Amino acid sequence: MLKIAICGGSGYTGIELLRILAGHPDARVTAITSEKSAGKRLTALFPHLHKYQDLLFEPLNKEKLLDKADIFFLALPHGASQEAVNFFFRNGKKVIDLSADFRLRDPGTYKDWYGLAHDFVPTLKRTVYGLPEMYRNRIRKARLIANPGCYPTSAILGLLPAIKGGLVDLSSIVIDSKSGTSGAGRKADIAVSFCEVNEGFKAYGIGTHRHTPEIEQELSFLAGENITVDFTPHLLPLDRGILTTIYAKLTKKTDTVSVLNVYKKKYGNEPFVKVLEEGVYPNIKNVRGTNFCQLGVKVNTRTNTLVIVSAIDNLVKGASGQAVHNMNIMTGIEEEKGLTNLALFP
Amino acid sequence: MLKIAICGGSGYTGIELLRILAGHPDARVTAITSEKSAGKRLTALFPHLHKYQDLLFEPLNKEKLLDKADIFFLALPHGASQEAVNFFFRNGKKVIDLSADFRLRDPGTYKDWYGLAHDFVPTLKRTVYGLPEMYRNRIRKARLIANPGCYPTSAILGLLPAIKGGLVDLSSIVIDSKSGTSGAGRKADIAVSFCEVNEGFKAYGIGTHRHTPEIEQELSFLAGENITVDFTPHLLPLDRGILTTIYAKLTKKTDTVSVLNVYKKKYGNEPFVKVLEEGVYPNIKNVRGTNFCQLGVKVNTRTNTLVIVSAIDNLVKGASGQAVHNMNIMTGIEEEKGLTNLALFP
Amino acid sequence: MLKIAICGGSGYTGIELLRILAGHPDARVTAITSEKSAGKRLTALFPHLHKYQDLLFEPLNKEKLLDKADIFFLALPHGASQEAVNFFFRNGKKVIDLSADFRLRDPGTYKDWYGLAHDFVPTLKRTVYGLPEMYRNRIRKARLIANPGCYPTSAILGLLPAIKGGLVDLSSIVIDSKSGTSGAGRKADIAVSFCEVNEGFKAYGIGTHRHTPEIEQELSFLAGENITVDFTPHLLPLDRGILTTIYAKLTKKTDTVSVLNVYKKKYGNEPFVKVLEEGVYPNIKNVRGTNFCQLGVKVNTRTNTLVIVSAIDNLVKGASGQAVHNMNIMTGIEEEKGLTNLALFP
Amino acid sequence: MLKIAICGGSGYTGIELLRILAGHPDARVTAITSEKSAGKRLTALFPHLHKYQDLLFEPLNKEKLLDKADIFFLALPHGASQEAVNFFFRNGKKVIDLSADFRLRDPGTYKDWYGLAHDFVPTLKRTVYGLPEMYRNRIRKARLIANPGCYPTSAILGLLPAIKGGLVDLSSIVIDSKSGTSGAGRKADIAVSFCEVNEGFKAYGIGTHRHTPEIEQELSFLAGENITVDFTPHLLPLDRGILTTIYAKLTKKTDTVSVLNVYKKKYGNEPFVKVLEEGVYPNIKNVRGTNFCQLGVKVNTRTNTLVIVSAIDNLVKGASGQAVHNMNIMTGIEEEKGLTNLALFP
Repeated sequence: MLKIAICGGSGYTGIELLRILAGHPDARVTAITSEKSAGKRLTALFPHLHKYQDLLFEPLNKEKLLDKADIFFLALPHGASQEAVNFFFRNGKKVIDLSADFRLRDPGTYKDWYGLAHDFVPTLKRTVYGLPEMYRNRIRKARLIANPGCYPTSAILGLLPAIKGGLVDLSSIVIDSKSGTSGAGRKADIAVSFCEVNEGFKAYGIGTHRHTPEIEQELSFLAGENITVDFTPHLLPLDRGILTTIYAKLTKKTDTVSVLNVYKKKYGNEPFVKVLEEGVYPNIKNVRGTNFCQLGVKVNTRTNTLVIVSAIDNLVKGASGQAVHNMNIMTGIEEEKGLTNLALFP
Repeated sequence: MLKIAICGGSGYTGIELLRILAGHPDARVTAITSEKSAGKRLTALFPHLHKYQDLLFEPLNKEKLLDKADIFFLALPHGASQEAVNFFFRNGKKVIDLSADFRLRDPGTYKDWYGLAHDFVPTLKRTVYGLPEMYRNRIRKARLIANPGCYPTSAILGLLPAIKGGLVDLSSIVIDSKSGTSGAGRKADIAVSFCEVNEGFKAYGIGTHRHTPEIEQELSFLAGENITVDFTPHLLPLDRGILTTIYAKLTKKTDTVSVLNVYKKKYGNEPFVKVLEEGVYPNIKNVRGTNFCQLGVKVNTRTNTLVIVSAIDNLVKGASGQAVHNMNIMTGIEEEKGLTNLALFP
Repeated sequence: MLKIAICGGSGYTGIELLRILAGHPDARVTAITSEKSAGKRLTALFPHLHKYQDLLFEPLNKEKLLDKADIFFLALPHGASQEAVNFFFRNGKKVIDLSADFRLRDPGTYKDWYGLAHDFVPTLKRTVYGLPEMYRNRIRKARLIANPGCYPTSAILGLLPAIKGGLVDLSSIVIDSKSGTSGAGRKADIAVSFCEVNEGFKAYGIGTHRHTPEIEQELSFLAGENITVDFTPHLLPLDRGILTTIYAKLTKKTDTVSVLNVYKKKYGNEPFVKVLEEGVYPNIKNVRGTNFCQLGVKVNTRTNTLVIVSAIDNLVKGASGQAVHNMNIMTGIEEEKGLTNLALFP
Repeated sequence: MLKIAICGGSGYTGIELLRILAGHPDARVTAITSEKSAGKRLTALFPHLHKYQDLLFEPLNKEKLLDKADIFFLALPHGASQEAVNFFFRNGKKVIDLSADFRLRDPGTYKDWYGLAHDFVPTLKRTVYGLPEMYRNRIRKARLIANPGCYPTSAILGLLPAIKGGLVDLSSIVIDSKSGTSGAGRKADIAVSFCEVNEGFKAYGIGTHRHTPEIEQELSFLAGENITVDFTPHLLPLDRGILTTIYAKLTKKTDTVSVLNVYKKKYGNEPFVKVLEEGVYPNIKNVRGTNFCQLGVKVNTRTNTLVIVSAIDNLVKGASGQAVHNMNIMTGIEEEKGLTNLALFP
């Protein structure tokens, strides 16, 4: 039985880890931290998590935590994660970091987009980017995982087979993403209050969202050359889910069925990626509460464009579910354990 | 491994049974019927149910189905269920009927409220009303379960300890229920179209809803005398969940803590009923996707009224989850199996 | 052309006043205050209010404001309103206060429920409770209006004809209200964040909500004796609207049509109250964005109970629209001016 | 006072015309048709339209209708509109057709995308495409207006200044649109039922939506050469509104402020187009219930791409409001009459 600590447990990714791990047969949460809720029972804040009757929030005291767990999930804000990650890693623990602090391999890029210096470059160099469909073998041997961002997960899974297969013009990639409101985190902020979000829809951070360099890093790695992309996030008036619509010019004439075959070949053995049939497209509702990614593609022969649609639950495949998947891979547990739930529909 | 057949599998309670049973270690769905989708693959209609790759909808041919399963769940429309229930029951199968056809013990009452004659009164007499918190021992020995309606489940669980304990004036009971839209079923109907329901809220069927006699039957049984109640259902602009607010005059002075103690004593060992602390009230969001019922109570000393609030997921505890709970009890399986999921929050 | 000042203009009732008054032919907003947005252009915060290009938020400097307007609408927090109301009133202005500070005639009751002393009792005594359907003649001559609360508006309009007509047992009144989230105000608070409210529904403040004494005050006045009621508010996952379901035992046998006739007689000439036909019930969606109140009634002969359903838009008839209605009455303008919009449906 | 007939009045565009015209000082609805509701009072179906107490649905009897009105709004299904439009036009009436039947100038294109022959080509040739920002002068003299589709309105208004100004590479245009559910019409269809749409989000008709040729026709006209575009519609879980995000490669280096100046110059005198400041982007919520279009732009210098965001209410600026705007222009009424409402926010 793996002992799990969750640092930063009162946000949506933290409580989603608790939900998922409650159904994992081989893992047990032994500690959970929250500075502002320290000393309170978890169930006082979240009565629906009644399986964790005995769990109390504690402050993030790294030394005290060290012996309480084998695996450390960090769901701390960007910047705040660096030091804790380094500490647990340097003390021999397995660490899965859900922040952005260890996702960008180049500290200069991290500084450019997050405005922070990276103080632990040697540790950064030992980090594996935790997208199993790209790095499964490296994850198996890793002790430190940078769990991918939600938008990058949806975009990279959508483009991976197309870029690997040389299907698209790398200078033409447009990534138009729409995310549910939980992606903004759990916070007191008028901008995410019900009455401002409900019955609304907007773009934000056009061309400037911090997930842009993360997407570009991985797509460039796949392509073997530097890629820049147009990435626009939008805010959906629903709780969970990201749907990403991707456009790229095709390098040669082809059709939808041929492209689908490339996708099915790449993802045929992947437990959590589902390539849909021709004419069927993903719906956020079909992946809600699950670790699955639905993919659909369409070749527009009038414009010679490949259109790819990708849907995930941002809190599961885009965060806590993928983190548990990484844990399973790192520890040799069967990959699907704890992650088999089907979508809550409706 | 129990073999399960689901008759009427393309509605919300049918696909919810499929979702729940996909996570049940001791059960396997071997047949599913739908007249209008007969011949189609389940996953062609519902791609999110990808665990059932091989399942095809078939027409409801009772003789052919008989050997395919040990347990028959019937999720057919009211009236259409009578004959099939009788058939499978008379042929020795265990049957759990999610329609209203076998819920009312008195065929006259059934005729008054549903406008239909009951053609299988001897079978009706052998039916057990499947509310485990009331009839667990009888369910254990039953072969035919009338699975409770969604509104009755929320109302009866809310009132059971108060009536058993003699706390309330039986002539003063007001039951004000609010249900998510999945309670109306899966159908093509302008009245449940998105644009008519969204951002709306209304009462309907005031004093005339068919769940009224079902509620009254069970409350009268608990009280040992005939009770009539005011029951008003409302339509909430959300997918799942019922919240029922109940008012009844107290028979004597008391306070919230004393009443909570009565409730905790009654439900302390119940796996699926959670009595909340003083000042904490249920939220539909806390039970979404789960088989749990949250209960909160408040004594209003200014008016000498007991106010009880009850929340369930109408498709789980109010339908398919309770059906699986009944199956577990009938077959001697551990009660919680397949039903341990915590709420999807947010 | 009436000159209007709005004190506390950055909340939902303030911006709703701006929306309504933009369509009022005889009124012009000349000043708007907000402490935290002082100095900013209104359109910088709310680009959709583009008709007010020249309006700047200013701090609430009472002396400076005095000459800028004829009518003062105060949309300040409870407690903060007392002094400003008194000042503008004592300086000869017409004042419409949307806070609760002048609604309760008894300063002791105000203290009990709001925890505040009332420092301006002589002014309080000259206040008229601004429910036109009850106090039209007094409003005509008033210079200070306490604009009714949203829940009280829906509850009192629902009960007025029944109590006046002696139809109901005054000790049996249950008021079960459901409000959209804008009723909680515009604020940074996790409890009203999208992901906590959406797909949820809950009761709150059972028996303790501050609108209780306001409802009781007016119902007692109508009845000529002291009444206490059970009042439970609930939070709906939608922007606007209150639907209130009211239960009371009938004093004698009657039927729905007879009660409807009492209601139609009372409200037949009211411009903003619409009594629906037998079997038709109100829907929040039918009054959204309007100053109309829809009423439906049902006599439950099985239980001898009158059930009344009332729907309003909490920000219009429940706040800013009713305030403009009061302004029209106080200034001799045609009552419906600026308030004729039909519901935005869907 | 203009006399108005609405043919096909029970759908969302029909009842939206009724809502808007109820606030128009110079117009009066004298007839409304619906085949399936013929003989019923309008208010029996839509109690919220209580201003139209005397209006009855009648069948579409063209000869009988002819003398009842000066202006005919047709909100009929595509295909069904052709003959009626031709009849009223040939009999000297002013006609505004909200269907697609007269939008495409080339009958061959109409046949390709709608699968129907066009039987009234001479009438088609006399039709003006009713986008006032493009064709105001022609609309002034027109007697037959093809009212633009909702998606095309949002896309064309977004691209017009960029194409006219030669700012963008015409072969690179990507139009990613997201529409509220009322765009699908008022109908009994599981696909638009609440539980299927709510908490979901999906793309549909990728590359094949019938608004594609309409968009291409007008953009080609603006460009002076044939353009094809990638157009993907998506379904939003909200009632009203379209937000369109447009991507196109820039023809030369520029910046956001320079492009905004081009947009402000073009739209500075337009009553219903609002160009937002740098860094501010449209939100569907800011235009809800209004005839306004909000536009925002961003130059992404990393990718040399112009990103344009456009928001309208699909039922107002995208349908019935634009139709009334066209009526005002055709009849010499002040353009803004009946269309001055600000957004319902929240």
